[in-house]
Amino acid sequence: MSKRWIRFLDGGEPGFGLLEGDQIRVHHGDMFGSPRPSGQTLSLGAVAIRRPVEPGKVIALWNNFAQLSTKLNLTKPLEPLYLLKSPNSFNDPGAVIPRPRAEGKVVFEGELGVVIGKTAAAVSVDDAMSHVFGLTCVNDVTHADILFRDPTFAQWVRSKGFDGFLPIGPVIATDLHPEDLVVKTLLNAEVRQSFPISDMHFSVAELVSLISNDMTLYPGDLIICGTSVGVGSMKPGSSIEIHIEGIGTLSNTFE
Amino acid sequence: MSKRWIRFLDGGEPGFGLLEGDQIRVHHGDMFGSPRPSGQTLSLGAVAIRRPVEPGKVIALWNNFAQLSTKLNLTKPLEPLYLLKSPNSFNDPGAVIPRPRAEGKVVFEGELGVVIGKTAAAVSVDDAMSHVFGLTCVNDVTHADILFRDPTFAQWVRSKGFDGFLPIGPVIATDLHPEDLVVKTLLNAEVRQSFPISDMHFSVAELVSLISNDMTLYPGDLIICGTSVGVGSMKPGSSIEIHIEGIGTLSNTFE
Repeated sequence: MSKRWIRFLDGGEPGFGLLEGDQIRVHHGDMFGSPRPSGQTLSLGAVAIRRPVEPGKVIALWNNFAQLSTKLNLTKPLEPLYLLKSPNSFNDPGAVIPRPRAEGKVVFEGELGVVIGKTAAAVSVDDAMSHVFGLTCVNDVTHADILFRDPTFAQWVRSKGFDGFLPIGPVIATDLHPEDLVVKTLLNAEVRQSFPISDMHFSVAELVSLISNDMTLYPGDLIICGTSVGVGSMKPGSSIEIHIEGIGTLSNTFE
Repeated sequence: MSKRWIRFLDGGEPGFGLLEGDQIRVHHGDMFGSPRPSGQTLSLGAVAIRRPVEPGKVIALWNNFAQLSTKLNLTKPLEPLYLLKSPNSFNDPGAVIPRPRAEGKVVFEGELGVVIGKTAAAVSVDDAMSHVFGLTCVNDVTHADILFRDPTFAQWVRSKGFDGFLPIGPVIATDLHPEDLVVKTLLNAEVRQSFPISDMHFSVAELVSLISNDMTLYPGDLIICGTSVGVGSMKPGSSIEIHIEGIGTLSNTFE
């Protein structure tokens, strides 16, 4: 059965636990190890929800959905193509995504996030899912006008690395089948993206296996699986929600 | 006067201090805050030297030296062009740089590293150096055969993100003038790179200022300033040294 892990601040003190309905069963210890129930229960409304993981690194996929590839006249790449999101971009459910100082178009990208639970180095595809702790929602916010303005160097890391450009959450859900999931993005309550994870060029198991052949993956590392069609710009004052059934809804505003 | 900060393991226990000759004056507290001498002194030869900083993020410049630009038929870019090095790449003085599983040519790139000491958000050029803690040597190891093999996406992050691909150290030296420094790289004791920091398109102060307008920089973050001419490949068994007068020599082997 799927569990939903959440992190929070309770009177300023960080904690985590299992979300069951609108109650949190508080746990102690290492979320990726053997967390123990503390016996305490908190009401979801009484705490401040924080991103459910503080990743050591965030690996972001490009061109990983067939429908978007077709639209962009691309094909399936021979290998996963990826960049890194910068730690200053990590952001919380409910938080403001601040407008960057650099002017121009800022776009949302709804994506599935894969949270690593066990150290993975050169793991096989068959063994990959046993290294995954669970799944979450992310908004891979991107400064679209910066990306290609230098003709010699695509500025992927910079365009995606501004402060607050990676909301994560609200929970990490365990024991879901990624290929059953659908990512929906709502801009000002209107559906703008709705795409199935089954359309990915590289499955979650393939991504974990192939990336772990390059880089050792550690508990808390996050792979964000890329977006599909329907990306659009956010205006100051926009509300933006990433929804995945079984995980929940990640809501933010762009100011 | 320049101080030289070093981190080490003493009987497995982490510590840090000021390197004076071959003696370490051990300190306690936050290296970037107000570290206090413990009164203890250790012999450099009695400890295992570790990288002098565990960066929150490492920003790596591309095309930042005029001489290399000319060689590559490039010009000074309008803005600093950068990527991120992955945390699994961070490596120690004296350590082995492991050969990646992916086959192909692996190259050394000697570079100056700038360690941030104070949180910097949108700082001016004039105020930038007051946010720099000190300078170090790095080897920005790169898998050259992967970089451009996909015609649609330059794999900067991946090529530079393999395990152990960023040796850092041996010390962080404070109060140096970056524009006076020269980076030398020795492969198997033969000088292969020797280039002045004064040849940078963007100075250290300009880099800190401009990047801090995109991303907030935190104590321990590291900006690596890019390399210049003389990059070459390392064969298994190679020894590789990055030397900057006033900082020291970062020595590693490639296996």
